[in-house]
Amino acid sequence: MGANPSAALGVSTEADARIPADHPGVLDLFAVLAYGEISAFYRLAEEAKLSPTLRGKVAVAKMAAAEMEHFETLEQALRSRGVDVFDAMAPFVRALDAYHASTDPSTWLESMVKFYVGDGIAADFYNVLADALAPEVGTVVHDVLAETSHSEFVVEEVRRTVAESRSERDRLTLWGRRLLGEAITQAQYVMAQRDELTELVLIATGDLNGIAALFERMQASHAERMRVLGLG
Amino acid sequence: MGANPSAALGVSTEADARIPADHPGVLDLFAVLAYGEISAFYRLAEEAKLSPTLRGKVAVAKMAAAEMEHFETLEQALRSRGVDVFDAMAPFVRALDAYHASTDPSTWLESMVKFYVGDGIAADFYNVLADALAPEVGTVVHDVLAETSHSEFVVEEVRRTVAESRSERDRLTLWGRRLLGEAITQAQYVMAQRDELTELVLIATGDLNGIAALFERMQASHAERMRVLGLG
Repeated sequence: MGANPSAALGVSTEADARIPADHPGVLDLFAVLAYGEISAFYRLAEEAKLSPTLRGKVAVAKMAAAEMEHFETLEQALRSRGVDVFDAMAPFVRALDAYHASTDPSTWLESMVKFYVGDGIAADFYNVLADALAPEVGTVVHDVLAETSHSEFVVEEVRRTVAESRSERDRLTLWGRRLLGEAITQAQYVMAQRDELTELVLIATGDLNGIAALFERMQASHAERMRVLGLG
Repeated sequence: MGANPSAALGVSTEADARIPADHPGVLDLFAVLAYGEISAFYRLAEEAKLSPTLRGKVAVAKMAAAEMEHFETLEQALRSRGVDVFDAMAPFVRALDAYHASTDPSTWLESMVKFYVGDGIAADFYNVLADALAPEVGTVVHDVLAETSHSEFVVEEVRRTVAESRSERDRLTLWGRRLLGEAITQAQYVMAQRDELTELVLIATGDLNGIAALFERMQASHAERMRVLGLG
């Protein structure tokens, strides 16, 4: 997953870790991220077919391969804690599959916007948790969310197209709004299902007001990403 | 691409390099390998859908990601020689696409056999060229053909199934034979199109008799791989 302007969220740093490395929610966090990487891999490989050029297909294949490297990092992190990644991922399959089913791109540009914006939203959310974790586990999360240079490819493709077409810009702006809505819906669904993950979020954000504030900051960060793409 | 028992071919070693690093056929060789990696990536990602389990899907995704690492090695090798990988790959798109179109698997097991056997055939062929190349370029070729541990997954899946089903074994044996035939057809087509690549093959094998002997050794090596899978 590639992150975007997460720095804009102004979240806390690793220095004030409030969640011990052996908190059971950490396993859930690794697992939901791992299934996210697998989902993203297959989504990218599938949507690359929409690319009009071989260059585009190759750029997307590289992004997909990067997701698998991240998956292997998480698989290893779970294994070193005695946990099988497939068992751990099972509870998250439904919510992540539902997110992808409800945001199935119909064009190459929708696919690119989803990649950039969707991963940005996920990175904003998970980085806040990572900041609150003991450094030895927080680092794993930050690493798999680290921005890759591949996403620059997306920014250039989208900016060029929407600069030339007002209707494309309007359509993709609505698409970006829908992605944010669906992502937040599924994040809330996951938290409602997994008490230990919810506890991580509560510790990381302080309290229920903190969660609300986090979602507000995520919206601001999303708006900034849309501007980077020339949208909104 | 993952190789199999290439050692069985009894080919020459890097010590007797007969092809200089700046032979123009080297660029063709890097390019056809690069397009092979891209094709394999998308084929694997597509065929993973046939997997009955998430474990199978993930194993295939890892293989696909390894193909992209190899692609990046070749892209870099071409770039360092001032060649754009996309321009260089263009002459090989048709033959490789034709190979994949003529050997489109209809089941998960056919897909796994194609991965193992097809890559083995390719590795046998290209490793013979690599052995004849100056070491600094031969190494690049050997590296991208190096066997990965992922293919062990294929061997186990196929062996287990064919041990239980005679009809499956017969069907996959025919499938393996067809893969060899189509691969040799396309290899001959590529050589007929690209004089400089043909020259590499002639230098590496000695003469036309040497090419015939190479294809015979490839058939023996193919038969050995089929036995490893419990087929033939």
